[in-house]
Amino acid sequence: MELYDFGIVGLGVMGRNLLLNMADNKFAVAGLDLDLAKVQSLENEINDNHQVKATTSVADFTQAIRKPRAIMLLVPAGNPVDSAINSLLPHLEEGDIIIDGGNSYFPDTDRRFIELSKQNIHFFGMGISGGEKGARFGPSLMPGGDKNAYERLRPIFEAVAAKVNGEPCVTYLGNGSAGNYVKMVHNGIEYGVMQLIAETYDLMKRGFGISDDKIQQTFANWNKGELHSFLVEITSEILNKFDEDGQRLVHVISDWAKSKGTGKWTSQNAMDLQAPIPVIDAAVTMRDMSKLKPERIQAAKKLTWAPSIDAINEDEVIEQIKDAFYFAMLNTYAQGLAQLTIASETYNYGLNLEQVAKIWRGGCIIRAAALEDFRQAYSRNPALRNILLDDTIAQNIAARQEGARATIKYAIDGGIPFGAYMNALAYFDSYRSERMPTNIIQAQRDYFGAHTYERIDREGSFHTQWD
Amino acid sequence: MELYDFGIVGLGVMGRNLLLNMADNKFAVAGLDLDLAKVQSLENEINDNHQVKATTSVADFTQAIRKPRAIMLLVPAGNPVDSAINSLLPHLEEGDIIIDGGNSYFPDTDRRFIELSKQNIHFFGMGISGGEKGARFGPSLMPGGDKNAYERLRPIFEAVAAKVNGEPCVTYLGNGSAGNYVKMVHNGIEYGVMQLIAETYDLMKRGFGISDDKIQQTFANWNKGELHSFLVEITSEILNKFDEDGQRLVHVISDWAKSKGTGKWTSQNAMDLQAPIPVIDAAVTMRDMSKLKPERIQAAKKLTWAPSIDAINEDEVIEQIKDAFYFAMLNTYAQGLAQLTIASETYNYGLNLEQVAKIWRGGCIIRAAALEDFRQAYSRNPALRNILLDDTIAQNIAARQEGARATIKYAIDGGIPFGAYMNALAYFDSYRSERMPTNIIQAQRDYFGAHTYERIDREGSFHTQWD
Repeated sequence: MELYDFGIVGLGVMGRNLLLNMADNKFAVAGLDLDLAKVQSLENEINDNHQVKATTSVADFTQAIRKPRAIMLLVPAGNPVDSAINSLLPHLEEGDIIIDGGNSYFPDTDRRFIELSKQNIHFFGMGISGGEKGARFGPSLMPGGDKNAYERLRPIFEAVAAKVNGEPCVTYLGNGSAGNYVKMVHNGIEYGVMQLIAETYDLMKRGFGISDDKIQQTFANWNKGELHSFLVEITSEILNKFDEDGQRLVHVISDWAKSKGTGKWTSQNAMDLQAPIPVIDAAVTMRDMSKLKPERIQAAKKLTWAPSIDAINEDEVIEQIKDAFYFAMLNTYAQGLAQLTIASETYNYGLNLEQVAKIWRGGCIIRAAALEDFRQAYSRNPALRNILLDDTIAQNIAARQEGARATIKYAIDGGIPFGAYMNALAYFDSYRSERMPTNIIQAQRDYFGAHTYERIDREGSFHTQWD
Repeated sequence: MELYDFGIVGLGVMGRNLLLNMADNKFAVAGLDLDLAKVQSLENEINDNHQVKATTSVADFTQAIRKPRAIMLLVPAGNPVDSAINSLLPHLEEGDIIIDGGNSYFPDTDRRFIELSKQNIHFFGMGISGGEKGARFGPSLMPGGDKNAYERLRPIFEAVAAKVNGEPCVTYLGNGSAGNYVKMVHNGIEYGVMQLIAETYDLMKRGFGISDDKIQQTFANWNKGELHSFLVEITSEILNKFDEDGQRLVHVISDWAKSKGTGKWTSQNAMDLQAPIPVIDAAVTMRDMSKLKPERIQAAKKLTWAPSIDAINEDEVIEQIKDAFYFAMLNTYAQGLAQLTIASETYNYGLNLEQVAKIWRGGCIIRAAALEDFRQAYSRNPALRNILLDDTIAQNIAARQEGARATIKYAIDGGIPFGAYMNALAYFDSYRSERMPTNIIQAQRDYFGAHTYERIDREGSFHTQWD
C-alpha cells in the first residue's frame, strides 16, 4: 500500500489550499473532512500530477500516512481543535506528530502540548499567515513545538512556504506554544499597521480633503520604495476598486470593524509581561470605538470642533505624512518584536529574533521591505532588546521625527482621531526619556498607600509621612 | 455573654484602622489575627470608649459575634482570602456573612460567591478606597453581593464611610462581584489621572522649564477650583516636600513606577468587554515603560530631538494646560464609567451609575469636585451611555478642546511623552466621529482573509474579489 507523506484534517479553504500547495510540490497528501462536500470539492481541484487522497474516514486517513505520521489540523480555534485531536488519538502511535495550523490561543497550545507529550505524541502549534492565497501559493509558517520532531516536517514546510531570495519563510521557532505566540504578535502588529493606514487615509481625506485618486496613487507610490509592504499594496488596490454602479467601494463599506481576538490577546498578554505595545493597544481600542456607532452619531452633534489645519502644499504634506507613516510603522514593529523578546524569556521559547524577522519577510500579512532591515539589525546584535537601539534603525527613525510630529499636529488641528500615530510617538518619546516623570506616581502611591519608593541617590526602600 | 456587632480578620494597618473607625462609631467589634503582635498593637490603640475584642483564636472570635455574623477579611488578595474563608467556615452558620475587603480580582469573587452560597453563607466583595487614613477616618466603600444580606451591614458601613453633604460614601452596588469590579475600575481611573498629573509635571518642568515652586503653586491653585480633587491636592503637597538636606524630595525619587495589578486588570477586562479606555491603557503602558530604564538610558543617546516649543507667556501656558488637564481628566472618568455601564450589562451587576458617582465623591483616591457633575448627569438621565453625551458635560469638555489641543502640540514639539493626554484626545476625536476610517480596515480584512464586510447602503454581508 502506498503511503502518504502528510495528512490534513479540515478541508475548508485554508486546508484545501495548503494541501494543493503540498501536492504541487510533489508530496503525497491525505485529506480528511467529515463533510463529504468538502472532500469532493478537493477532488475536483486535483490534477494528474497530484498524489492526493481525500476521505471522510478517520481510520482510512490515518492508515494512509507514513510513520511517524504528520497530521495538520486546519479547524477553527477552540473546542474543534480538541475534538479533532480526540478523534485522531485512537488511530495514532507513539512518535506521531499533530500540528495545529489555526490561530489557537497560546495557553491552549501549551495545555495540548503537555497532554499529548504524556502519550508520546508530538504537538506543534503553527501560525500560518498569508490568507487563502498564501496557503495556496506560499504562506509564512511559524511552527513551534518539539525540535527533533520538526525534522519530519521540515522538507514539506520548506517546500510550500513563501520564498524570499530563495530562502523559505519558515523555520523551527521554539518550544511549546512559541509558534502560536509569534503568530499572535504578528497579528498584533498587523492590527497596528492597519490602524495606521486607516488614520493616514482619514487625515488625507477628511483632514486635508485630498482626492481619493491622489490618495490611491500615494499608497501605490509608497509601495515602490522603502514602505513596500503587503498592507500598503492592498490599500492602493482597495482604493482603486469601484462598485458596479461606479462608486468607490470603500465609501459604502461600513465603519464597524470586526476582529477575531488575536489583537486583543496580544495586548492583554503584553500587559501581563509588562511589555509596552501602545500602538497595538490603540488599534484594538479603535476597533472597539468603531462599534459604538449609535453613540458616535450622538456625540458628533454635541462635541464639535472647527478644523483649522494651516493651508500647506499638498505634495509637501504627503511627504511629511510619508515620514510619519514610516516612523509609526517602525515603532509598531519595534513594540511587537520587543514583546517577543520578553515573551521568549518568560516562557522559555528560545526564540531567535533574526529568524522571526526573516520568515516574516515574505508570505505573511505584515511582510514589508523593512523586515530585512530588522533581520540585519538582529544579525548585527542577536541580543538586541529593541530594534530602536540599532544604530542604523535609530538613525532612520529619528530622521522621520519631524514629519511625524508635524503630521500628528495636523491631525490635532483637524480633529482627526490619531490614536495609533500618537501612541507611536508617545512610545518613542518615553523610550528616549532617560528620566520619566513616574517619580511623581511613586510619590503619590507612597502618599496614599504607603507603598514606599526607591531613591536615585541611595539604596533601599523609603516611606515618607507626606502630610 | 456580650456579643459583638462585627468581626474583622486581619489586623494589619487597614484592618486595624477600619476596626478603630467602627469602634469610634460605637460599634462593638471583634478582631482576629494569628499574629499576636498585631493583636497587641490593636489593643494598644483602643480607649475606654471602645468596645473591642482582639484575639488569635478563630473559635473565640466567631463565638463573640452576634448572628447572623458579619465578618470582614482584610488580608492580601489571592490565596490568603481562600485560606481565611476556609479557617472560618467550620465556625460559621447558615446566614452568616463574609465580606472580602481586599482588592480581589473580580472572577475570584464570583467563584467564592457561588461556592459559599451553596452553604448559605453570604459573600460580599467590597472595594475600599482611601488608603490607611481613609480606613481610619472615612473611606469610600464599594460593596457588592446579596442585596438582602446588605441590611445587616448597612448601619455599620454608613457610619464609618466618608460623608459628603451628610451622605455616606457607601451604598449597595450590585450582584456578585459588582463591588470588586467597581473598585477595579476606580483604580483604573486612578492610574489614568496619576499618569495625567505626571505628564503635566513633565511638560511644565522639562518642556517649559517652569520652576518647581510655580508648578507646586499651580497644583495648589487648581485644587481650589473645578479641578479640586484628592490627587491634585496631594501632588501640591508632594511638590512641597523637602529632604533633610534641603532638596525637593521628588527629584531624588526613582522613576521606576510600581503597580499591584488593578490597572492592568481594568485594561485587560475592558478589552474583553470591547469597552475602550485608552487613557487607562496608556497609564498601564507608561508604568511598564518606566521599568525599561536600562534601555531608556541607551535610547536617550540614540533617539535625540531638539525641543522647539514656541516661546509663550508662562501664565498663558498654564491656563492652557489647566484646560487640557480638565479635558483629559473628564475623558478618563468618562472611559471608566462607560466601562462600568458595559460591565453591568455583561455581568448583570445591576449598577446604578449615579450611585457610583455619588460614593466616589468622598473618601476615595479619585474623589473630585467633578464627581458631583457626573452624579447630576446620571440623575438627569439614568440611561446615559457616556457622560460625554450629557449636554452640560459635553459643553464643559468641548470648551476645553482648544487648550487640550494646544497643550498636546507643545508636548510634541518639546519631545515630552504624552501618552495619557494623547489618548484622551484620540478617544474624544474618535467618539465624536460619526464615521471612522475603519471601513479601510474592513476592506483590508476582506481582501486578505475573506472576512466579508457590511455596507452602509444595503443589508447583508459582502465579499469582494479585490485583486
